[in-house]
Amino acid sequence: MTSTDLADDLAALAPDLRGIDAQVADRLFRDARTVGRFLDRDVPDALVREVHDVVRWGPTALNTVPLRLLLVRSPQGRARLATHMSEGNRERVLAAPLTVVVAADADFHQHMSRLTPHAAHLADVFAADPQGRERAARDNTWLQAGYLVVGLRAAGLGVGPMGGFDPAGIDDDLLAGTGWRSLLVLNVGWPDGPGTHHARAPRLEWDEVARTV
Amino acid sequence: MTSTDLADDLAALAPDLRGIDAQVADRLFRDARTVGRFLDRDVPDALVREVHDVVRWGPTALNTVPLRLLLVRSPQGRARLATHMSEGNRERVLAAPLTVVVAADADFHQHMSRLTPHAAHLADVFAADPQGRERAARDNTWLQAGYLVVGLRAAGLGVGPMGGFDPAGIDDDLLAGTGWRSLLVLNVGWPDGPGTHHARAPRLEWDEVARTV
Repeated sequence: MTSTDLADDLAALAPDLRGIDAQVADRLFRDARTVGRFLDRDVPDALVREVHDVVRWGPTALNTVPLRLLLVRSPQGRARLATHMSEGNRERVLAAPLTVVVAADADFHQHMSRLTPHAAHLADVFAADPQGRERAARDNTWLQAGYLVVGLRAAGLGVGPMGGFDPAGIDDDLLAGTGWRSLLVLNVGWPDGPGTHHARAPRLEWDEVARTV
Repeated sequence: MTSTDLADDLAALAPDLRGIDAQVADRLFRDARTVGRFLDRDVPDALVREVHDVVRWGPTALNTVPLRLLLVRSPQGRARLATHMSEGNRERVLAAPLTVVVAADADFHQHMSRLTPHAAHLADVFAADPQGRERAARDNTWLQAGYLVVGLRAAGLGVGPMGGFDPAGIDDDLLAGTGWRSLLVLNVGWPDGPGTHHARAPRLEWDEVARTV
């Protein structure tokens, strides 16, 4: 069944259901690809900030919002980061207009009295449970990373996510002195035309990923 | 600094930078809230499928796409699910038009030869490492959950995410016989007007979440 068939079926089923606007769907998901090559053009901090100002409103458990961002821009910063990347990712980091380390703040509970006033006592629960705290930080940062990737694409940026790096190396070096734990590294920039992407890898079909009870 | 100031600054800095379309930003993030009450109106499987058909294209590590969905719709299914929810969430599950259990497939590697043909040997690496596999499944499912929440909102739906439940209880009951592990439970429906939401909780400011090197 193609997506056109599906849209037709949906329209027949419930003519007033809107579904996802095709342009939004294409821009954020269907036409967007992991980008490996970027234009030689700056990505200002102010633009990443604008994206964050939007995506920070996405929901997290207990409004913990543990996502933190290290923007790696200077030649010195890039060189330090590259030493912690796997070999295949080093050149990518050195060549990208901007690289963003997505990190989980394991000390997010320090902000809970302000962020979660209706459940401020949970700050003490988390303070006494470093392992549960680290897990909550990681899980909710991954969730926020999903919002962030969508937000960067919504701003017209291309994103190249990388999992191949030494997290402890980044944490002990670039994130030293913080409770931040690196989870994901994103190259960010203006995509260098549609011809430079890999062919799109397939995805699973609905019947393989969903069940109804 | 307000967002209008920021948008002005951004426009001054780089007049051709697009930023995020205000309507998209409002619909997906700024105006969207965690929804607790829904209209008495069905959310057909076909609509959730349409959303998944879009958000499944979001990137995951090695194209592992481990997100799985259990759509809980029947009175029997709801009643079973409710027994595993924390007390404050039981009525919500029984009252929502649709509840979706977001699960991570710890056996995602069984699809890797099809999904990740350029690195099919990694299926064997994951097969030999159940702990690493479970972690990769969890991390990437949380990332995909971020795409899913945005996609449901893009279709006009309201989402009420819940973390208060017994994951092992759900896994041993509703997900028995699968490698699926429940991470998050979402109530999904058509929002019952703008007046029924909680006041929006605050978020951290840019200087609290970001650093540049």
